[in-house]
Amino acid sequence: MKTLSIGMFDSGVGGLTVLKEVRALLPQEHIIYFGDTARVPYGNRSPQTITKYALESALFLLTKGIKLLVIACNVSSAFALPILRKRFPIPVIGVIEPGAKEAVRCTKRKRVGVIGTKGTIQSQAYERSIKGLDPHIAVISQSCPLFVPIVEEGLEHDDVAYLMAEKYLTKMRHSRIDTLVMGCTHYPVLENVISHAIGKDVQVIHSGRETAKEVKETLKKRNLLNNSGKGGCEYFVTDAPETFKDIGSRLLGEPLKHIKSLRNMDIKDFLLSS
Amino acid sequence: MKTLSIGMFDSGVGGLTVLKEVRALLPQEHIIYFGDTARVPYGNRSPQTITKYALESALFLLTKGIKLLVIACNVSSAFALPILRKRFPIPVIGVIEPGAKEAVRCTKRKRVGVIGTKGTIQSQAYERSIKGLDPHIAVISQSCPLFVPIVEEGLEHDDVAYLMAEKYLTKMRHSRIDTLVMGCTHYPVLENVISHAIGKDVQVIHSGRETAKEVKETLKKRNLLNNSGKGGCEYFVTDAPETFKDIGSRLLGEPLKHIKSLRNMDIKDFLLSS
Repeated sequence: MKTLSIGMFDSGVGGLTVLKEVRALLPQEHIIYFGDTARVPYGNRSPQTITKYALESALFLLTKGIKLLVIACNVSSAFALPILRKRFPIPVIGVIEPGAKEAVRCTKRKRVGVIGTKGTIQSQAYERSIKGLDPHIAVISQSCPLFVPIVEEGLEHDDVAYLMAEKYLTKMRHSRIDTLVMGCTHYPVLENVISHAIGKDVQVIHSGRETAKEVKETLKKRNLLNNSGKGGCEYFVTDAPETFKDIGSRLLGEPLKHIKSLRNMDIKDFLLSS
Repeated sequence: MKTLSIGMFDSGVGGLTVLKEVRALLPQEHIIYFGDTARVPYGNRSPQTITKYALESALFLLTKGIKLLVIACNVSSAFALPILRKRFPIPVIGVIEPGAKEAVRCTKRKRVGVIGTKGTIQSQAYERSIKGLDPHIAVISQSCPLFVPIVEEGLEHDDVAYLMAEKYLTKMRHSRIDTLVMGCTHYPVLENVISHAIGKDVQVIHSGRETAKEVKETLKKRNLLNNSGKGGCEYFVTDAPETFKDIGSRLLGEPLKHIKSLRNMDIKDFLLSS
């Protein structure tokens, strides 16, 4: 069991910022990453569709032999975590609970901000998770729909990033929060811009980083840590591997290798054929 | 045959700017619009995936009884037009040829600009189409990836629209074009911003408007015009009908009605069941 892989999935490249943190913390583990690039983005799909896509992604990873599953996607974690936990016999970790837990630990004034895609913000998953841990915390939320295309276009140092951060975060800056959760896997790339707009006195939480800690703790608790592995990563995408490689290498901070494409094949067909 | 509908498809809401033009020109026709909102956007998918999705969308519309098919999507027109023309027994019209034809008619200096999503620009479909009509015309192309999210977020009057138009079009403004094709169905919403950035002396072409003229001409030639109908529209989407309604009403300039959702059903399943 210990030598099995960690499975991670996301709608596209965003989850690579989570993978980066898991690798940094657990360099001996082997990771299989699945990016559903034929159907990205999930952010403005319906909860039913997101759940269906998440189930298909998780099933694909299970056929590869994994000991733990990470939902490296905020909106999938928001909607599909309960059903994946119920259906699958391995530990399943989403990005929302770890981010929420860290926000609760950090906030002194009991005022937390959350930013994410429309789907994640509308789901109110962070709000529920934070209030489940401490009902006295006020949660102020804001969707920032242009942040993902800005990151994917490599415009994180451009005027447009600062302009949009200013627009999205001005109201929140005046709301007296002392902690801000980046509830989208793309946002860590904009961490400086976000920090600049919200003010240096606000603690910015990287959900992916907290998720990595949770992964380590869970594997440790279950005696599943791989202490003898060389570590490594393998990537599967459902479309456009070249784009995944280009944008993904920027998100990961190093060149992506070993990308396999399931292009032009339904995940269902793949499951049947493998 | 005359009373049959016109079928139109797009990956999402963008094609509604084409529908708007067809309705204005042919108010007595009944139109069935299909938006593949569960898999939008097609812009950065691979040619194979786009072709597969386009075939599925076209098949769905054929089961509804249509006399003519409009591919109301630039990137689908770029990749799937030949195969749809070959496979289907009705006239199939894409948005690229009509836009290219009008650009060739308009340019005096024989220098034409084309803007669109990455997929459309990389396909070089406008370039091929324009040069097929007049090989002496120089075509200057530029992808503008942030324009679609700007339109979908209703930011067409915002600073960010002007900032990005300036960034995308500065080089083109210095390239001595006298004609610019908006090669993406979302861009007509930004027509003023684009015109402002490129300069008032450049003629801006709305491919959707030209497509509507082509639809009328084709129906007339084949004696398929509906002269007695009351006209009307029906919409099918594969996901999130509420979002389609919100953004679509803005693009169409009037409230959208009669939206049916195929949510949580594969198009394939739908074809089998209907």
